Formats: sequence, structure tokens, C-alpha cells
Amino acid sequence: MLKMATLRNLHHSIKSKISIQQFKRQLSVTVYCHQEYLRTSIKDDEKGIRRITLDDTKKRNALSLAMLDELKQRLQDANMNESVKVVVLGHTGSVFSAGHDLKELLDETGSKFHSQIFNRCTEVMNLVQDIDVPVIAEVKGVATAAGCQLVATCDLAICSDTSKFAVPGVLIGLFCSTPAVALARAVNRKQALKMLLTGDPINAKEALDCGLVNKTVPIEDVEKTTQELAERITRHSSRVIGLGKKTFYRQIKENRDEAYCITGNVMVDNLTYEDAQEGIRAFFEKRQPVWQNNK
Amino acid sequence: MLKMATLRNLHHSIKSKISIQQFKRQLSVTVYCHQEYLRTSIKDDEKGIRRITLDDTKKRNALSLAMLDELKQRLQDANMNESVKVVVLGHTGSVFSAGHDLKELLDETGSKFHSQIFNRCTEVMNLVQDIDVPVIAEVKGVATAAGCQLVATCDLAICSDTSKFAVPGVLIGLFCSTPAVALARAVNRKQALKMLLTGDPINAKEALDCGLVNKTVPIEDVEKTTQELAERITRHSSRVIGLGKKTFYRQIKENRDEAYCITGNVMVDNLTYEDAQEGIRAFFEKRQPVWQNNK
Amino acid sequence: MLKMATLRNLHHSIKSKISIQQFKRQLSVTVYCHQEYLRTSIKDDEKGIRRITLDDTKKRNALSLAMLDELKQRLQDANMNESVKVVVLGHTGSVFSAGHDLKELLDETGSKFHSQIFNRCTEVMNLVQDIDVPVIAEVKGVATAAGCQLVATCDLAICSDTSKFAVPGVLIGLFCSTPAVALARAVNRKQALKMLLTGDPINAKEALDCGLVNKTVPIEDVEKTTQELAERITRHSSRVIGLGKKTFYRQIKENRDEAYCITGNVMVDNLTYEDAQEGIRAFFEKRQPVWQNNK
Repeated sequence: MLKMATLRNLHHSIKSKISIQQFKRQLSVTVYCHQEYLRTSIKDDEKGIRRITLDDTKKRNALSLAMLDELKQRLQDANMNESVKVVVLGHTGSVFSAGHDLKELLDETGSKFHSQIFNRCTEVMNLVQDIDVPVIAEVKGVATAAGCQLVATCDLAICSDTSKFAVPGVLIGLFCSTPAVALARAVNRKQALKMLLTGDPINAKEALDCGLVNKTVPIEDVEKTTQELAERITRHSSRVIGLGKKTFYRQIKENRDEAYCITGNVMVDNLTYEDAQEGIRAFFEKRQPVWQNNK
Repeated sequence: MLKMATLRNLHHSIKSKISIQQFKRQLSVTVYCHQEYLRTSIKDDEKGIRRITLDDTKKRNALSLAMLDELKQRLQDANMNESVKVVVLGHTGSVFSAGHDLKELLDETGSKFHSQIFNRCTEVMNLVQDIDVPVIAEVKGVATAAGCQLVATCDLAICSDTSKFAVPGVLIGLFCSTPAVALARAVNRKQALKMLLTGDPINAKEALDCGLVNKTVPIEDVEKTTQELAERITRHSSRVIGLGKKTFYRQIKENRDEAYCITGNVMVDNLTYEDAQEGIRAFFEKRQPVWQNNK
Repeated sequence: MLKMATLRNLHHSIKSKISIQQFKRQLSVTVYCHQEYLRTSIKDDEKGIRRITLDDTKKRNALSLAMLDELKQRLQDANMNESVKVVVLGHTGSVFSAGHDLKELLDETGSKFHSQIFNRCTEVMNLVQDIDVPVIAEVKGVATAAGCQLVATCDLAICSDTSKFAVPGVLIGLFCSTPAVALARAVNRKQALKMLLTGDPINAKEALDCGLVNKTVPIEDVEKTTQELAERITRHSSRVIGLGKKTFYRQIKENRDEAYCITGNVMVDNLTYEDAQEGIRAFFEKRQPVWQNNK
């Protein structure tokens, strides 16, 4: 609890435009204290859209253990923050993320450490889907291996028409087995296997056609398009969006009958939300609903 | 049994063009007796195609409890009728169906009633897939919420190029969690989530691209196209079609090995049908097979 | 073991261009001894690509029990052969395969024999996916019923733009229930049901759009395109490809959390492979990796 409070202060500090130096000093007392520098940045707008930007360009936004720790914290924080309604996961540079940090996967670091990395990576991927807040990937370049897994995992994705996606683990003798989990649940089977067995990239058009992304636009329009998509979601009650997103991932893993059992109960429960009754009343009164917006 | 007999007489009456007054009087003794008027109509052709038409235009073909009751009865009846080989589920007006009747979802009606509605809705959706007779959605306009769920649930769907599909529950604070069950099993995950989280409609082309419908044609060709598709199916043995459809939904929820276990046995069983042996013999004798057509 | 050794000698003999007569004589002592003639041929190239060619043109490459037995043996052999890295499953004539041999499905042969056929067919389909070696379907014509199932089952597929695919069992009163298992896991549900319920073929473009094949090219380019795709895979460590392929099919049948549990462990294990450490080191040293290539 203390840590979260500290973090909130920090986020507040960021908005207050304190100097980077001051900021880093403050950070030294937080959960990030084991890191030399921040690999992500965050920025909130007045509509409730939080941008989490992968910002470790030199390392091609590698999903090192430190980066994964940071992302985990960022996602949990976004979810706990009442005012955050949508997360946009963007990046600096020409690479969304190149996947795991290969230096961490060398023999020297040992299987126990490798386990830790893959567990943390799975935690982050699952957080993306399991938090209430929708997460949109904003891709303006290359997403490979666990970076491609992250795009496949996000609820939604917008990419530039210059983007490329690959799961090229086979090129270094490490089959992209964990990325395959996300990829094979996002795109059709033969497309997933082609990418996994060849390691070859697909372009933005192919990514769109197979359902890996929702839309591809010229690179200069990516941010605007993502922002518009995010804003479409912020119109709605955060609590209802949260319930719906959670329920979506609960039902998708069940067979049809069990899925209806779960969702039928959720619908009845959803109707007891003030936001639902307000929404239905507003519909009849031909006016915009006013959401409680308690998550 | 008595009820079914009564119903069949009624259906016969409909064809005999009795007056609406007479018709309503007759209805008073049937299962529809709790309803003031019929929300659907049926029409059979000589090829075994039964059209069930959603016909409550004023209410945008809302899936009220009464409409769901009626649809349930219609589907069961179609399945039990030996001469019905395919069901086309069409509509009058510009709306296929706008989903649940929101008046029934207000607080006043209570959670118990809400449960009843969603249970009945699930029953209807499952009937569409679980009856032997294939069901084709014929969409010439807008299908939203549970209306979109119904299209996603049907075995096949044809739509006009003016059609739109949406799961816009978020606009009224009621996430389309039950429609998501059908939608997420028909289209790719990012498309389903985009529709659910934004509430925004997709057009006919997008519906085709993501697999929500089988074909989109100019509005004036919709009925002809649906009829042709239905007729393609009526060429075949109803009993074999029934076995196949049932088996399809049985195996799809299992993993591959269990699916093959089920379907392998079904194939052996199917070969003991007179229609299969007739079909194979006709093939060798280069003639059209003559089906038993007992369901 | 003896049998395999005999087979290997035979394969060697094939390459030595012995006369067909000699070849048949030799075969009489092998597992194929119950067959009058071979229904497939094999050809290896120096890159580790084994072509298994369905070559029973007169019977439209029917998957008779004898053909299935032969395919089973071919697939097992390819998997056990250290030098085979990819299998291309091609065909002579204008039909990839027309599915089961209908003569074997007549009443006279009896349900016990029918069971044997479908069990063997399922064994072959599952072998295609369960062996370590990737299998690419190379289609230059028509693939129907269990032939279409085989294309849907292969890890990858290339087809000519003249190709057609159908699951037309309904035309002979035998619903394609086993082909449906593979088809419904490769393409979207409404497309699968349309093919199954109508029996009508789809063309190459439609097959591509729904994910049944990876690519469609002019017929004269099919072999070159398949060869290139196969070669892309042969660049990689066979052992890593084998682990990855096996893991893909293991995880795809599980829910997300179980899938990550499986694949996370596989990643850690994969990192202990010499090929993985070599691959990562080669990456840092900016050179091509040298694979062990022990399967």
C-alpha cells in the first residue's frame, strides 16, 4: 500500500513536470529502485487514456526482466488508478519490441533465471488480458518474438503500414513457443505455423488480414487512429467495460454451454449496476447517460 | 403432442389465408395464448424450406421474452416437422433484430425476471445450433446486440451490402457478454473485442471478411441468394444433414483426439444409413441418389 | 527395426534407379507385401526435403486402407530418418486426393472394416501433426473429403490457383464428419459449415482467404513455391523445429493458462539445447549459426 501511494505521488510529480533528476531521485525509494533507469514512460490525458511507452530504444525495447518488472508494475498501476480508462501501449524508435533480451538467455544465467524470465513474461501477458482496463497496442515498426506476442495479447492493436511482425525464434535455435500461445489464439492456424516454422516476417496488410491487428494506417496517422479508438472506449462506463473484458476472457476458454452459464449470470449482475440502469433510462429519455465511473 | 397438432393446424390455417381475427381466435387455444399477437410468421415452400420471419417491425424485432418464447416454439416445431429441411430466419423492416427488449431489463422487472430472459435467450441460441435442421440468417439491415448474437449463432448467414452489425451494449451500460459467446466463436478475437469494447457497428464487407456472414449481396438479391443456398442443402438427405450438423457442434468443443473419437464412430454409424448406401451406389451407377428422407 | 532397415535399403534402391520389376520383387519382403503396387513415391533432395507423392492417379489418389497404410509408414519413416527436415506431400494428376475409396465403404465390407478405415485415417491425420517434421501440402488440383481433410491437417499448404477444395460427403449421404474436425480447426466456423452442409467446392482464392492454405500461385509455380517454403524451414535446427511443432499442437488444445504452463517449461528446456546456445551466440557474433541437427 505504501508503495502504491509512493507511486501515485510520483505519477503526480510527473504531471507537475519536475526535472528528470528530481524524478530519478524520488524513484530511488520506489519499486523501481533496483533499476538504473526507466525503460518505459507514462502519460495521462484528460480523457482517461494512459499511454505506456516502451522507451528503451537502444535495446530495441527488449523485454528484459527489468522491462517486464516495470511493465507489470505499470499495468497493475493503470488498473488500480480510478481515472485510467484505457491503456495505449506504444513505443519510441522503429521497434515496438524485439522480444526477450538474449543476453539474459545465455547458458551462464542458468535455467532457474530463465524460468523466472518466462514466468514474469507470462505474468505480464496475462495481466494485459486480465486487468479491467482495455489495452491497445500501438505499433509503428517491428514487433518480433515476445514483442509480437505482446501485440497478439493486447485486446486491440493499430499498426502503421510499415510495420512488420515475426516470431523468428527458430533463427536462433529457440522456437517461439510462448509467443505461439498468444499468436495461435489471435490468427488462423496455418498463418501462425507459417510464421513460427519459417521465422519470416509478415507485413501490416497480412497482419490485418489474419486478425493480428485491427487496423493499419500510414505511419503519420497511427497515434491519431489509436487515440480515436481509445476515445471510443472512454465514452463508456469503466466499470461495465471492466466487467465485460474480464468476462470475455473467462468465457472464451470454456465450451459454449459453460460460456453461456457464466455470461448469463454476468448479464443479470450487470443489470444491477447503476450504470446499466442509467444507460437504459438515458436511452428511453433520448439523452446521453451519465456514468458513475467507479471501477 | 396435442399442442403440436394444434400448431400444425394453425400453420395450415395461415396458408389458407384466414382472417387475422379468426386466426387470433384460434391462437387463443395454443401455446401462444399468453401473447396478444404473433411476432413471427412462417412460410413453407415445396422444397422443404421454412421461412421464419421476425415480424415485429415496430419494436425493431426485439427479442422480448414473448419473441424468444415464440422463436423457441418455431425452432422446435421446424425440427419436428418431417418436411422441413432448412430454416431461413428472415425479417421484415430494416432491422433484423435490435436485441433484447430494454423495457424488460429495467430495475422494476427484477433480477429473477432478467435471469429468465437470458436463460430463454440462451435456450433459443442453443436450439438454433442443436436442432437437426440447418438455420440460415437472412439479414437485410441492422442486427445488434442479441440480434447480432443470433446471426453469429446461425449455421450460415447471407446479408445485404447495406447491413450493419454491432454489439453496442456498452452504450447503455450493459456489456454484450452473452452475445460475445457467439461472436467470439464466429470471428477472430481482435475483431470481436473491437466490436464489444467500442460498441461501433461494422459493415457488410467487414462482416464478410471476419466470417460473421457467408456472403453479402445487393439488397434486392438477398432473398434469391438465401433461397439458392437453402436449396443447395435441400438436395441432400435430411437425416444425414441432421447427423452431420449435430456432430459438428459436438466435436467442435472437444480437443482434436476426442473430436476424432466422436466423429470416427459417427462415420461408421452414418454408413449404416440407407441413405449412405444409396448415395454410394448411385455414385457408382452415375445416377442421382433417391433419399429416404426420414429425419 | 528390421523392417525399417529393409525400407531404407529400398529407398536407396529407388534412388539407384533400379527397374520397376526389380523394385516390386524387393518390395514383396517388406511391409508393403500385402499391396500389389505402390500408391506413393518418395524423393529426397540434398537439403533434407522429402517429397512424398500421392501417385495413384487412376483412383484419384483415394485414401484406401492400402494408401493409408502406406502413408502411415511413409510419415513414420520420414520422422525417423535423421536427414529428413521437411516433408512435402504432393501428388500426380489433377487430383490431390478424392478422399476415401468408396468401394471400401459399401455395406458388404461391414462396420468392423469401416471402423478400421476411419481409425487408420485418423492415425494418419494425427501423424501429420504429431511427427516432429513439418508437413507441407502441395496441391495442384482438387482435394475433396478426406483429401481436403489432409490439406487442412497439414502444417502448411500451397496450392495452384486452379485448385478446388470440397467436403462433399453429403452428396453421397455420408456427411464429412471426420474431415470436419480438421476443417473446423483451420477455417472460420461459417465457412466450414457452408462447405459441409452444401458440399459445394471453394476455389483457391476462397481457400486462401479463410486460411485453408497459406498461398495460392499459378500452377506452374506451385512446386517452386513449395520448395522455397520448405527450404526456409530447412535453414533451422531440426531438433528445435521438432520441439516447436510438437509444443504447438500440445498447447493449442489447452486453455491459455495451461498453455503458458506447458510452453514456459519448453522454453527453459529449449535453452538447454546446444542449438539454442549456438544460435544466440552466433547472433551476438553476427555470423550464421551451425546447427547440431540431431533430431
